[in-house]
Amino acid sequence: MRQEFHTIHLRTSGPKLYEFTSQVLEWLRDTGMERGLLTIFVRHTSASLVVQENADPDVRRDLTAFFRRLVPDGDPLFIHTMEGPDDMPAHVKAALTQVSLSVPVQGGRPILGTWQGIYLFEHRRSPHTRSIALHMIGE
Amino acid sequence: MRQEFHTIHLRTSGPKLYEFTSQVLEWLRDTGMERGLLTIFVRHTSASLVVQENADPDVRRDLTAFFRRLVPDGDPLFIHTMEGPDDMPAHVKAALTQVSLSVPVQGGRPILGTWQGIYLFEHRRSPHTRSIALHMIGE
Amino acid sequence: MRQEFHTIHLRTSGPKLYEFTSQVLEWLRDTGMERGLLTIFVRHTSASLVVQENADPDVRRDLTAFFRRLVPDGDPLFIHTMEGPDDMPAHVKAALTQVSLSVPVQGGRPILGTWQGIYLFEHRRSPHTRSIALHMIGE
Repeated sequence: MRQEFHTIHLRTSGPKLYEFTSQVLEWLRDTGMERGLLTIFVRHTSASLVVQENADPDVRRDLTAFFRRLVPDGDPLFIHTMEGPDDMPAHVKAALTQVSLSVPVQGGRPILGTWQGIYLFEHRRSPHTRSIALHMIGE
Repeated sequence: MRQEFHTIHLRTSGPKLYEFTSQVLEWLRDTGMERGLLTIFVRHTSASLVVQENADPDVRRDLTAFFRRLVPDGDPLFIHTMEGPDDMPAHVKAALTQVSLSVPVQGGRPILGTWQGIYLFEHRRSPHTRSIALHMIGE
Repeated sequence: MRQEFHTIHLRTSGPKLYEFTSQVLEWLRDTGMERGLLTIFVRHTSASLVVQENADPDVRRDLTAFFRRLVPDGDPLFIHTMEGPDDMPAHVKAALTQVSLSVPVQGGRPILGTWQGIYLFEHRRSPHTRSIALHMIGE
């Protein structure tokens, strides 16, 4: 039994979903590990993680639209506004989705369903570089 | 230290919570493992996981009602409608809850609180068979 | 490779975020473990976990205010009311946030981002003592 660590950096340009399933698969291949537990952790509080459908791109568009309507920019409820009208909504959207994901690995691959992709959900408007930690424990 | 894998298949008949705590306990017993980390992962994007109160069934009814009101079927916001009026709401509800759960195990049992049960949260109206992956690492 | 278990007890006094990052760091130091996977699990269904910004306290105030507006106490939608007008909303808020968190550990510390703190999110008005399980596997 052993473990491996890695960090993925993703550049974002506004609120939407950015798939990084292929980077995860590639790194897992490099570790040579076949069976274990994969953990994905995003090191930010205004971007988050989701597993979503990777078939129709409209799903990602609709998901982003729903969160924008549920947590609108510039909502007068918020008093934390000094970092911009989209900052506090970003924290709320992050709280409503995931900061970490745990996926069992068999045959050297995360056992995702047929239509599941792994996404970074960016919530800020301005460009960011986001850091995502990967951890694998197994054999 | 070793690890075990398993898959549970659950048949669903419409949007509600389906408890599968007993199937998890039974499988853990079969592995003979006493201490470790249990991971539960649902391999779908229109059903999800929640840990909820297992005492009063009204809690599950109310939870389902809240999500139905928050993300209504047929919402004109959505353009991904080809799989039915309840498909895109199902993806949103899945994003708002969990795709994976991590529970420490001691004495051969997940250390759930007294009132905690493990549930599949089905979001689609038509019947489905859902696949849930279990992973245990420990000793 | 080995594992350690621990339980943190937190006293709460009403709906808000209670940081316990320092208790986690302290316990990790005591285990002497350097590299691995940390799991945090809350043993309740009316309190939950979030990773949020630990800089401006207004963020926590705004987050609490958003959830109070999204899931109002005494909502006539709910029929599970015997434990008080804030009980069913508490279950919904717990379902919308996290019951477990998984964080890779390197150099004896969880690899949190600069602004990330680990919080218990209490959803009930009356005082409670909440039990949070910690698990570390690694070396």
